[in-house]
Amino acid sequence: MIKPQILKGTRDFGQEDMSKRNYVKDTIRGVFELFGYDPIETPVIEYAETILGKYGDEGDKLTYNFKDQGDRHVALRYDQTVPFARYFAANHGELPVPFKRYEINRVWRADKPQKGRYREFYQCDVDIIGTDSILAELELIQIIHLSLNKLGLKKFVIKINDRALMDSLMEKAKIEETARLSVIRIIDKLDKIGKSAVIEEFKKIELTAAQIKELEPILDCVGSNKEKLEKFKGLRTERVEKLLNLIEGTELEEFVSFDVSLARGLDYYTGIIFETIIPDTGLGSVVGGGRYANLCGSFSKQEFSGVGIALGFDRIVDALEILGLFKNITINVEVLVTQFDDALENETLKIAEVLRKAGINTEMYFEPVKLEKQLKYADKKGIPNVLIFGPEEKAKNICQVKNMETGVKTELKIEASEFKKYFRK
Amino acid sequence: MIKPQILKGTRDFGQEDMSKRNYVKDTIRGVFELFGYDPIETPVIEYAETILGKYGDEGDKLTYNFKDQGDRHVALRYDQTVPFARYFAANHGELPVPFKRYEINRVWRADKPQKGRYREFYQCDVDIIGTDSILAELELIQIIHLSLNKLGLKKFVIKINDRALMDSLMEKAKIEETARLSVIRIIDKLDKIGKSAVIEEFKKIELTAAQIKELEPILDCVGSNKEKLEKFKGLRTERVEKLLNLIEGTELEEFVSFDVSLARGLDYYTGIIFETIIPDTGLGSVVGGGRYANLCGSFSKQEFSGVGIALGFDRIVDALEILGLFKNITINVEVLVTQFDDALENETLKIAEVLRKAGINTEMYFEPVKLEKQLKYADKKGIPNVLIFGPEEKAKNICQVKNMETGVKTELKIEASEFKKYFRK
Repeated sequence: MIKPQILKGTRDFGQEDMSKRNYVKDTIRGVFELFGYDPIETPVIEYAETILGKYGDEGDKLTYNFKDQGDRHVALRYDQTVPFARYFAANHGELPVPFKRYEINRVWRADKPQKGRYREFYQCDVDIIGTDSILAELELIQIIHLSLNKLGLKKFVIKINDRALMDSLMEKAKIEETARLSVIRIIDKLDKIGKSAVIEEFKKIELTAAQIKELEPILDCVGSNKEKLEKFKGLRTERVEKLLNLIEGTELEEFVSFDVSLARGLDYYTGIIFETIIPDTGLGSVVGGGRYANLCGSFSKQEFSGVGIALGFDRIVDALEILGLFKNITINVEVLVTQFDDALENETLKIAEVLRKAGINTEMYFEPVKLEKQLKYADKKGIPNVLIFGPEEKAKNICQVKNMETGVKTELKIEASEFKKYFRK
Repeated sequence: MIKPQILKGTRDFGQEDMSKRNYVKDTIRGVFELFGYDPIETPVIEYAETILGKYGDEGDKLTYNFKDQGDRHVALRYDQTVPFARYFAANHGELPVPFKRYEINRVWRADKPQKGRYREFYQCDVDIIGTDSILAELELIQIIHLSLNKLGLKKFVIKINDRALMDSLMEKAKIEETARLSVIRIIDKLDKIGKSAVIEEFKKIELTAAQIKELEPILDCVGSNKEKLEKFKGLRTERVEKLLNLIEGTELEEFVSFDVSLARGLDYYTGIIFETIIPDTGLGSVVGGGRYANLCGSFSKQEFSGVGIALGFDRIVDALEILGLFKNITINVEVLVTQFDDALENETLKIAEVLRKAGINTEMYFEPVKLEKQLKYADKKGIPNVLIFGPEEKAKNICQVKNMETGVKTELKIEASEFKKYFRK
């Protein structure tokens, strides 16, 4: 006998979970399509060389990889961006450019499972490749905003920053290019470890006091978006400024925060970067993304600038659960057709057929056990209506439909039009 | 530079593929829900012991499995039935019984890729567990029929047989229980190798001439369903008979064929089994399934009878492609908003916003390049409408919408109601 267990960080989703998850997925997909994105889908298993070496040492450690039956070194995808870059590099000759796509699928990371962190989880990606226009960044902010808004979230902070701005600051501080990624990774910890610990870490990588002084404005930058911009005048603030100007006066304004300490340590972005926090949930960022000047660099000699975001689907589901925002989540079944006895089996089957031809999601109970047991089953599943057809109903050429919530019974003729009237009211 | 390639037997799906695949998926899901099934979802990665040993030696060989970062032996699921059995065994105390669910997701097999056979592919599963009723089998046949019918397929053969009937025949032929699975696997090859080769293989496993004679009716059984039943009178034909009676006179009758040689060699079914062939495609069976007397046997001491089918999603897509049944497959984008110049950027963004608020899937072109280039892009993507807003339009406070197929331009006020009227007509 094998214990029916699953790996930590992976999950089974029952019918109630699936209703919630499908509601979130359909909402996000609806927003992606509203903005004119179409889906593509890439494989779960890729050659390991496609995936490894793209996310730093830490990412490589977390990538599931193994030798397959043909001794090929393969890996499960770590995110959807690298496979997308691989797809675009292989097909850009035939694809429209700029190329926009969305993908909502699972990714895997051999991570330590904890609150809001799973080994197998969904990402909802939108990417645009082949344009430098800042309108692409604006659109991604619109998409984050509308997705969360449609899910009933009223409070969230879309944080933006620009790696180019950070770069120009590090240039000013005379930090060598080779050291810059380390600096970014230290800044990335600011929220967790605080300013003084960050400065300690700066010292450990042998930044000078003068260099640290130049970086300090990043560590305690407060004020309005405009005030923050002011502080970094003379550095590469153009794109952030243009983006904030586009947002000014729109419904997005109150949700977007220019956060000069936002670093996204593990990724090699080169331009605008994004995160999004939902307060009062205790969860990490529910969005990650940004711009790469050369998204397909590993796969193609041609340079293509790309920008994209991944919405962390499972964290968003967790946030809605924590905030009590799942309401009126129902199952698909609209009516359970009960069975009275074997003698009425054929006629009962026909009733189920009429219901289905009328487009009503109909479950048939398979055994003519006591009605009480069948009603209990409907109740346990949360099926809103139960149909009863016994000898009395047969004599009158009708059936009874019982609303399980109110207990009210309605006599209906066995006709599609009657069923539609009742179930579609 | 890494070559942007994927593993054989895995595929990238571009936007046109995805339109087709989503149409097939939505159609099948719609039928599953019409019959009152709700989805569940289980992990892709399971403990290897959950997956291995369930599909025979051949199945074990084809299962992707490896040691994870924590030295746990894990596997990618080979189908969705075993994970479902594991899920039910772990949760049946809380679940309604009978329990019905559907799952449409990917599975993996380290198989040799060939026509209609992939290493990574989708299965569409419906299963019912916790009832012996033959109405469950009937419902699965209804679901196969309606799914294929809704996809526009007019010709297909739903083959049924009963492992219990085969068993009773082997009992009559005095074939020992330990040899029966080998016999079934030989019969399974009948379609491929023909009758005389099957008999040769029978001899190789040392069946006697008398035993082979008893089995021969299986190898050349022709006639109507009723005539075939006649030939096996006295054996365990009850369930096939009941099923055929339920189907008699219904729209299912012409699609269902009682095939006494149907064996489904690699699986341990104990009752009714199913396959489905779509003629003129050269593809193997697009459906596999059947009943297990003890579906959760590996995971639970309690016995639960279960019956289910898996529709081979990718083969069905292939069949529709081969038969030319994909028509009017469109992309999601309804209109491309072009950009005239930077001066009109803000107003153009507002037009896109009005369109989206009206629920119209709207793509914005990000750069104010020549209109010709923007139209070419719309054409390449197959976007049906293009919106133009330049100084002339601005002066008149309107925009132009060009239908890309007919070339007709329509002047529209920049109002949600105007847009809805045009796009929803």
